[in-house]
Amino acid sequence: MKKRYIPEDTIKRLPVYLRNLLNLKKEGKKIVSSKEITFSLNILPVQFRKDLSYFGKFGKRGVGYDVDNLIKTLEKIIGIDRKIKVIVVGVGRLGSALIRYKGFSSMNMEIVGAFDNDQNKIGKKIEKIKIMSMDQMPEFLKKNKIKVGIICVPFDKAQKVAEHMVKSGIKAILNFAPTRLNLSKNMFVNYVDMASELGSLIFKLKNL
Amino acid sequence: MKKRYIPEDTIKRLPVYLRNLLNLKKEGKKIVSSKEITFSLNILPVQFRKDLSYFGKFGKRGVGYDVDNLIKTLEKIIGIDRKIKVIVVGVGRLGSALIRYKGFSSMNMEIVGAFDNDQNKIGKKIEKIKIMSMDQMPEFLKKNKIKVGIICVPFDKAQKVAEHMVKSGIKAILNFAPTRLNLSKNMFVNYVDMASELGSLIFKLKNL
Repeated sequence: MKKRYIPEDTIKRLPVYLRNLLNLKKEGKKIVSSKEITFSLNILPVQFRKDLSYFGKFGKRGVGYDVDNLIKTLEKIIGIDRKIKVIVVGVGRLGSALIRYKGFSSMNMEIVGAFDNDQNKIGKKIEKIKIMSMDQMPEFLKKNKIKVGIICVPFDKAQKVAEHMVKSGIKAILNFAPTRLNLSKNMFVNYVDMASELGSLIFKLKNL
Repeated sequence: MKKRYIPEDTIKRLPVYLRNLLNLKKEGKKIVSSKEITFSLNILPVQFRKDLSYFGKFGKRGVGYDVDNLIKTLEKIIGIDRKIKVIVVGVGRLGSALIRYKGFSSMNMEIVGAFDNDQNKIGKKIEKIKIMSMDQMPEFLKKNKIKVGIICVPFDKAQKVAEHMVKSGIKAILNFAPTRLNLSKNMFVNYVDMASELGSLIFKLKNL
């Protein structure tokens, strides 16, 4: 694929389209219109077509999209046409819940390893996923060709943990710790900030 | 406050500023510059000043911001100057983890009730939070003046659950279920979509 500018919002919608198509497939749909794909997403059909247009021409005017083909196309565009292995760092309550979370596997993303610095946790397992020490990270990442990690440590540990992950071979981080990470520009970081989402919701409720 | 247009991104940054100020306060800071406030957030100082300007004039040019005052101001702007009570619906792994999550309370948001339709869970407690049946929701919300709820049910249950919450008195929903909700326009909904965040991160890793 050509390396050109694609809006952040478009990138974030791609997995949303994919998941919705997987649901439509489960419902037995073979061919769908852009209206059917976007209906339950509160997204305009024209927005969907515009988002897809960054990656080529898909679907047939007046006919619609072949569900299986579009699923394969989106998986390929996103980069999850093959299973992507991911680690979790920080096996507290949230980390444990994520390891058990079923929502990643339908999207071909799988948590395959967990890391913590608590001696009482290291060596134990959560649903077949072994909890390893931080020292074991570089070897595990190399052996399993893993570049993506999820941070679930407390906010005041996140920066150090992130730096250790980068040194160990991680290139992309999903950060659940409620703090920003200061890393080199060639690292990719997304944030899931639950308290901020709840706070902004309360702002809207009170003010809008 | 006047009801006027405030960009979504500004709204989402307000709790981020607040949390960072709470951290700066913990570090003993009394007066901070916009640069200090935004430094660890990867946000430009000018963006912070612009975001604040929607709500009035704060801080003194060349002097900076009084930390305690700005915390109070932001809490008031967001609407969390008094404790906001919140419910969780769906006490599976993620719901349980959220009930135990400590990140909400520092922002004056507190989960005070949980709901599930599993007879084996109803009546039990997670950290002092009682799990109630869905039928008990309207009365509980009314009695405790609660308008904000978090959805942690599977995606195929989320729409029905959301409709029940709205009927019971909820006005704002933070939805962790990986699906969009179709609700009346006067409802406020924010989404935390973990698989989509992870997917978009993988896209960036593979393509950018």
